[in-house]
Amino acid sequence: MTQDILVSIEALRSFAEELLAKLGVPGDDARTTASLLLETDLRGIESHGMAHLVDFYVRRLQSGEINPRPSISISREAASAATIDGDRGLGFVVGDRAMRLAIEKARLIGSGWVSVGNSTHYGAGSCYAMMALDENMIGFSFTTGGRLMTPPGGLGRTVGLNVISVAAPTPRGFPYVLDMATSVVAAGKLEIARRRGTSIPEGWAVDARGQPLTDPHGLHPEGMLLPLGGSPVTGAFKGFGLALLVDILAGALSGFGTSAEIEGGRSAAQCFGALRIDAFVSLDEYLERVGAMIDAVKGTPRLEGVDVIRIPGELEHELAKSRLRAGTVPVHERVLAGFREAAEEFGVPFDLVPINEGTDV
Amino acid sequence: MTQDILVSIEALRSFAEELLAKLGVPGDDARTTASLLLETDLRGIESHGMAHLVDFYVRRLQSGEINPRPSISISREAASAATIDGDRGLGFVVGDRAMRLAIEKARLIGSGWVSVGNSTHYGAGSCYAMMALDENMIGFSFTTGGRLMTPPGGLGRTVGLNVISVAAPTPRGFPYVLDMATSVVAAGKLEIARRRGTSIPEGWAVDARGQPLTDPHGLHPEGMLLPLGGSPVTGAFKGFGLALLVDILAGALSGFGTSAEIEGGRSAAQCFGALRIDAFVSLDEYLERVGAMIDAVKGTPRLEGVDVIRIPGELEHELAKSRLRAGTVPVHERVLAGFREAAEEFGVPFDLVPINEGTDV
Repeated sequence: MTQDILVSIEALRSFAEELLAKLGVPGDDARTTASLLLETDLRGIESHGMAHLVDFYVRRLQSGEINPRPSISISREAASAATIDGDRGLGFVVGDRAMRLAIEKARLIGSGWVSVGNSTHYGAGSCYAMMALDENMIGFSFTTGGRLMTPPGGLGRTVGLNVISVAAPTPRGFPYVLDMATSVVAAGKLEIARRRGTSIPEGWAVDARGQPLTDPHGLHPEGMLLPLGGSPVTGAFKGFGLALLVDILAGALSGFGTSAEIEGGRSAAQCFGALRIDAFVSLDEYLERVGAMIDAVKGTPRLEGVDVIRIPGELEHELAKSRLRAGTVPVHERVLAGFREAAEEFGVPFDLVPINEGTDV
Repeated sequence: MTQDILVSIEALRSFAEELLAKLGVPGDDARTTASLLLETDLRGIESHGMAHLVDFYVRRLQSGEINPRPSISISREAASAATIDGDRGLGFVVGDRAMRLAIEKARLIGSGWVSVGNSTHYGAGSCYAMMALDENMIGFSFTTGGRLMTPPGGLGRTVGLNVISVAAPTPRGFPYVLDMATSVVAAGKLEIARRRGTSIPEGWAVDARGQPLTDPHGLHPEGMLLPLGGSPVTGAFKGFGLALLVDILAGALSGFGTSAEIEGGRSAAQCFGALRIDAFVSLDEYLERVGAMIDAVKGTPRLEGVDVIRIPGELEHELAKSRLRAGTVPVHERVLAGFREAAEEFGVPFDLVPINEGTDV
C-alpha cells in the first residue's frame, strides 16, 4: 500500500520557487518553471510534474548539467521560422521563450515555427502547445527523449522516446490537447508502476532478448520500449516513423543533433509551432466545425461499461478544474520524502504537509 | 491463386491520361493525376495507385461527384498561411496546387501552411509531402478519410480514416517518407486482402459488436477499424488523437468540415505544409544530423531473421528505382479487367498487356 498526500498548490509553488532560487535560477525563471510543473500536476500527468523537481531539475542544476542562468539566443531567423540555442538552460525557460517566439510570428503572418537546440528536459510538452490557446491558435511542441526505444525488427536502444504535443481551441469548454510519447507508453508510466509496485501489461516493452516485459524494474539497464503500434503487423512502423519525425524537426532542424547523438538525460532538442486560426478561416467557422466533430465523436454508441467517450485533453481539463477548486494536488509520499531531504540539504523551509495526513491509493 | 500482371509504365500513363480526358479533365490536370497515381504504384503503395483509377476517379467524374474543370480559389491568405476552395476538383489537381502554394510561402519566409476544403480523394498523401524534397524543405500533407474508425470505448463509425504524410531530405540516397493512416492499418489493406482472398490479423478491425474481425469482407457495412495503438492499454487514444488532429488541420481550419460532417467517398478536406530547412539551419548541418540518426538506427542490433532495419520511405524508394529501371509496374488482373471494361465504355484504346502474360503472386 502506497499513499498520495494532498498538498496545497500555493505551498508547492513557493517551495519549488525557493528551491530553484537556491540553485541560482533567477526569480522569473523559477516562477515559469514552478508554474509549468504545477500545471502538469493539476492536469494529472503524474509522469512529468513536481515528482521530477528534485531528481530531474535540482540535481542537474547542482551538477552543472543544467545552466541556471542561460544566455538564450536566436541563431537563425526568417519571418516564419527561427532556431534558438538554449545554452543548456532549464527546458521550461527555453521552451517558454521559444513558444512565445512561434506565437509572435503566427500573430504577424499566420504561422511560426521555432526549432531549439542545446535545451534540457522541459516537462510535459502540452504546456507549451497550450500557450497557443489563448491566442486562438493551434499550438505544437515536439521534444527528443532519452534513447529507450527499439526500431521495428531491432533489439537495441537507438531511438528516442520522442514526444508530440498539440493543442487546439474548441467551443465545448475544454481544449483539444494531445500529448503523446511516440512509444506505446511514456517511460514515466513504468516509473509510476515501479513506484506503486505494480506490473505492466505485455506490449509496452521488451527485455534484452526481445521477450515481453511485465516487470517494470526490467526496463533498465537493457530493456526497450516499443514504438506506438507495438509490433510491425499492428503499425509499429508508424510509431517509429513519428519518433524519427520529432528527431528531424527538433534535433536536425536545430542542428543540435537527434536523440541518436544527444544524451536525453543531459540535454534535449525541441521544436515549437503555432498556426493562427483566423489566418485560415474565421474563428467562428473553425469553432463550429470543431464543435460538430466533438459532438459526433462523443455521440458514438459505446462499449458496455463505457460511460463517456473522451476527447484528448478533456479529462485533464476537468481534473485541473477540480484540483484548482480544491486548492490541492496529490503528491506521492516517496516524492514528498525527497522534497523533505532537498529542503534540509538546501536550507529551504518545508511546510508542505502535516505528518501522516494521507489518502489511500 | 490470383495474378499480378506487369504493365508498361508509359502505356499505363497514356491510358490514364486518355481516360481522364474522356471524362472532361483538361490535359495538364490529367497529366498531373496520372503522374501522381503512377508515382504511387512505383513506390508499391498498392492501396492507393492506379487500382483506384476507375472506381474512385472515373466513376465519380462520371456521376458528377468530382468536377473535371474546377475553379480552384484562395478564400483567405496571410504571408505564411492560406485556405483553398477546391471546387470539388480531382484531389490530385487541388493538392498539387495547394502544396505548391505552401512551398512558395516557405521559399519566401521559411514556412507555409495551406488548408483545403471542398476537395476530393487525392491518392497517397506522400506524393504531396515529397514535392518539398527538391526544394530542400520538409513537406507535410494531411487528409480526411471516410468514417470507418471507432474511438476508444466506442462502437460506431464516427472518426475518419485520416492520414498523415511527411517527407524530409536525407543524405543517404533515399528520403524519409512517413505515410500513415491514423488507424492501425489503412482501409486499403483490407481491400487488398479481399482482392487476394486472405484473412486479416486480429487487432486491425472489429465487427458491429466490437469483436475482433479476421474476415476482411466483414468490414462492411457495420465493422470498424481501430485507431493506431489498437486498444486503450496499448495507446489507442494516441491514434484517435492523431485522427482528430488531421480533422482539425484539414476540416476545421479550412472551414469545410471534419470527417464527422463530410462524406469521405464524395469529398475531402486536406492540409499542406512546408518548412524550408535553411531558414532554420544550414542544409549541410541538417543533413549531417539526419545522416547520423539514420546510421545509428540502421546500426541497431537485429532480431533473428531480420536482415535490415528500414527507415520509413527507404523500401518504397528502392522499389520505385527498380520499377523505373524495369519500365513496368505490377497491376492486379482484376484491376486490369476493370481497365478493359472502362476502355470499351469510354472508347479509349486498351493495349496495356498481351493476354495471359502474368506472374504468380
